[in-house]
Amino acid sequence: MDQTKIFLNDSQMPKKWYNLAADLPTPMLPPLTPDGKPLSPQMLEAVFPKNLIEQEISRKRWIDIPQEIAAILYRWRPSPLRRAIHLERYLKTPAKIYYKDESVSPSGSHKTNTSVAQAWYNKQAGIKKLTTETGAGQWGTALSFACHLLGLECKIYMVRVSFDQKPMRKVMMQIWGGNCVASPSQQTQTGRDVLARMPDTPGSLGIAISEAVEEAVLDKSGKTRYALGSVLNHVLLHQTIIGLEAQKQLKKIGIKKPDVVIGCAGGGSNFAGLAFPFTCDKIHGQKIDIIPVESEAAPKMTQGRFAYDFGDVAGMTPLLPMYTLGHKFIPPAIHAGGLRYHGMAPLVSQAIVEGLMRPHAVDQLHSYEAAILWARTEGFIIAPETSNALACVIEEAKKATREGKQKVILFNLSGHGLLDLSGYEKYLNGKLESSQVSRKSIQKSLDSLKVFKTAPRRKSGKW
Amino acid sequence: MDQTKIFLNDSQMPKKWYNLAADLPTPMLPPLTPDGKPLSPQMLEAVFPKNLIEQEISRKRWIDIPQEIAAILYRWRPSPLRRAIHLERYLKTPAKIYYKDESVSPSGSHKTNTSVAQAWYNKQAGIKKLTTETGAGQWGTALSFACHLLGLECKIYMVRVSFDQKPMRKVMMQIWGGNCVASPSQQTQTGRDVLARMPDTPGSLGIAISEAVEEAVLDKSGKTRYALGSVLNHVLLHQTIIGLEAQKQLKKIGIKKPDVVIGCAGGGSNFAGLAFPFTCDKIHGQKIDIIPVESEAAPKMTQGRFAYDFGDVAGMTPLLPMYTLGHKFIPPAIHAGGLRYHGMAPLVSQAIVEGLMRPHAVDQLHSYEAAILWARTEGFIIAPETSNALACVIEEAKKATREGKQKVILFNLSGHGLLDLSGYEKYLNGKLESSQVSRKSIQKSLDSLKVFKTAPRRKSGKW
Repeated sequence: MDQTKIFLNDSQMPKKWYNLAADLPTPMLPPLTPDGKPLSPQMLEAVFPKNLIEQEISRKRWIDIPQEIAAILYRWRPSPLRRAIHLERYLKTPAKIYYKDESVSPSGSHKTNTSVAQAWYNKQAGIKKLTTETGAGQWGTALSFACHLLGLECKIYMVRVSFDQKPMRKVMMQIWGGNCVASPSQQTQTGRDVLARMPDTPGSLGIAISEAVEEAVLDKSGKTRYALGSVLNHVLLHQTIIGLEAQKQLKKIGIKKPDVVIGCAGGGSNFAGLAFPFTCDKIHGQKIDIIPVESEAAPKMTQGRFAYDFGDVAGMTPLLPMYTLGHKFIPPAIHAGGLRYHGMAPLVSQAIVEGLMRPHAVDQLHSYEAAILWARTEGFIIAPETSNALACVIEEAKKATREGKQKVILFNLSGHGLLDLSGYEKYLNGKLESSQVSRKSIQKSLDSLKVFKTAPRRKSGKW
Repeated sequence: MDQTKIFLNDSQMPKKWYNLAADLPTPMLPPLTPDGKPLSPQMLEAVFPKNLIEQEISRKRWIDIPQEIAAILYRWRPSPLRRAIHLERYLKTPAKIYYKDESVSPSGSHKTNTSVAQAWYNKQAGIKKLTTETGAGQWGTALSFACHLLGLECKIYMVRVSFDQKPMRKVMMQIWGGNCVASPSQQTQTGRDVLARMPDTPGSLGIAISEAVEEAVLDKSGKTRYALGSVLNHVLLHQTIIGLEAQKQLKKIGIKKPDVVIGCAGGGSNFAGLAFPFTCDKIHGQKIDIIPVESEAAPKMTQGRFAYDFGDVAGMTPLLPMYTLGHKFIPPAIHAGGLRYHGMAPLVSQAIVEGLMRPHAVDQLHSYEAAILWARTEGFIIAPETSNALACVIEEAKKATREGKQKVILFNLSGHGLLDLSGYEKYLNGKLESSQVSRKSIQKSLDSLKVFKTAPRRKSGKW
């Protein structure tokens, strides 16, 4: 009997996170201030605690996972590695499809891997309260959970339109004691200004970030900081536990390496979590095709530009070197809210520049088609974001059939879709539209980009 | 490090189901026709296929699990046995609390264990379509899933009020191809009659059962049958895989037997699934306290009567020997919809009569208090039904503290609560009320019971 579920004991959970910055052939470009000058770590201290800033700029290859963090992660980690034999059979593919199941976490996605770590480091630094923004609600839920366990207060600014459409996400935050308010709110100057101008605004992630950062920076006690759920180096670092576990699990069943590694990529964190340890293997000579999958609604990697750009819509954050569509780019309202971000994590962006990764974009009609096929073969209902990765997995499995190759395909099942069923409903009722955006609107957004410096393009395919 | 997650390989999944009827000291009383005469198996053949009727009346101790059913169950089974160390620490109890996690199934509860088996046996019998009713939606989801995998049509009559309140449950059924309609519907004579009299009725489980049975019985092709999600012997049989796995898992970590076994009990199937294999051990001399936990909103085991009663509100089913509040009993609209049933499975009822089990009732305010504590310690959000079992677990753990005993408490986490967050919302906002019903309304309902025969009470506590 083929083994379809590969578990690790608690004691086999990785003891360190892996930092790709240590192995990238070209050093990472530094973040800049809005006027293009180098940003000093001290400038970030009103927003993040020192210990996380140290992780953010670290070039150390391995960073210890504190035992107290591990003790919390054991609630759901090590996460299972599973084999999708029913999908394989349906596709009649010689490929073996494995996936890490990150839907098993309390909040239902990979986000808890970093929320726990961030809350712990903030607590170590004497911080009492974290603020954040959330769009669809996954990140706000994950941070509420972590703050509750570590005894921190948690304040979440949730984009008004999602706050109204997804009331159950707020209930989950409440269960863990999180204080979730609709953004724009009356609780910050930013929020009050926006409401004065546009009382009926549905809100945006840009506004919500501004409110969360304002509350953290202006707290006179100095005990409040801000937390981000993706994009930054330290967030991606915390997610590498996914790929490190997968390496152990594949070895356990005698597979030396996967041939293809796939993850969906909004800000980049779940993808990086799975892919970075394998990217290290690739740098050291293994042949692995590594594919970050974006939505055609926000195709920063396949149609954007590598440049310095703001992380938020309002232009309040430092400038980050990354693939971007321009921070003012407004994507269609697709259901995979986590993939609507305009930029890509600097570490992932740099790895793409180095030729280590091969980005791919998926239309939401294809992603839902894949999600339904998954539910009808494997049996589980996955998140709209994850279904983009799955659509790519299916394409790669079909390619393996055409080539007659017994490839091992590994992907990250980043979350379940049980709180996002309305997208499925629309798809099944034929009410969902294609998510492609016009080249013209992308070009218009890119033209507004203030480019300070672009990364050097590598000269030839060396991997 | 204490092991908090105990897994089994696919090959360690039990190969047979356990039938408690073979071991009960007093033989089971037979079902009767509405006028009190013995019911022949043939009378059931318009409703159920022969192979399931054979299981229903079987006295064989062990019944083989067909390999094709096992191949489907491997998608989520063997389910994990987990230890709730964070709850233990919070309670400062010397007790060790273990639980089977049945929330890992595709539909999110134990219901798939029997839906897959029932769909398979119906398919073997040449049946092409199954009809059923569903209240909160768990059972309809599970049957849709199973029918899809086995290529059967599935028609679900969902109680109108739930159909309107929980649209996402319908989406889940649709994902697996199930055809879910609000009941009463225009598609059956029963439905049309009810709608003519009460066009605005919210519906009831009784009406929905009648519609589903009518559609099965009246189908002229003879290829449609009805499926029930709890109460009947063959349904409980399919669930015993839960307890059989738990026995193996406890042995794996050196625990010979649990001291206390707990499950919530609406119709009785998830409770029986965990408890029956341990009930067998108890009959053969082991000391185990076995506790079915009901809601105080429908306290059939603690305040009802052992008598022959109908399984449905309309009085269309055979008479079953069971603990009941009377089939016309209408419980308060608690959130744990699965615990609102007026009766208890005959096998569980008989085991209570024999003194093998010790029923317990819980108020919904206590059950939600327990559920919140679980989310804030263990981290997961459980179904409202499950939280009743948990409230009892917490009481038993506190008792162990008072007694200073290192008891092993085992319970069944029958499902997650991710599609039932509105009850949590009401509880957190202080809008939830006690679920107790008055003795007077219970007495009134009991007085209307037509009692044909009651089981002999055992004379002394022998277990």
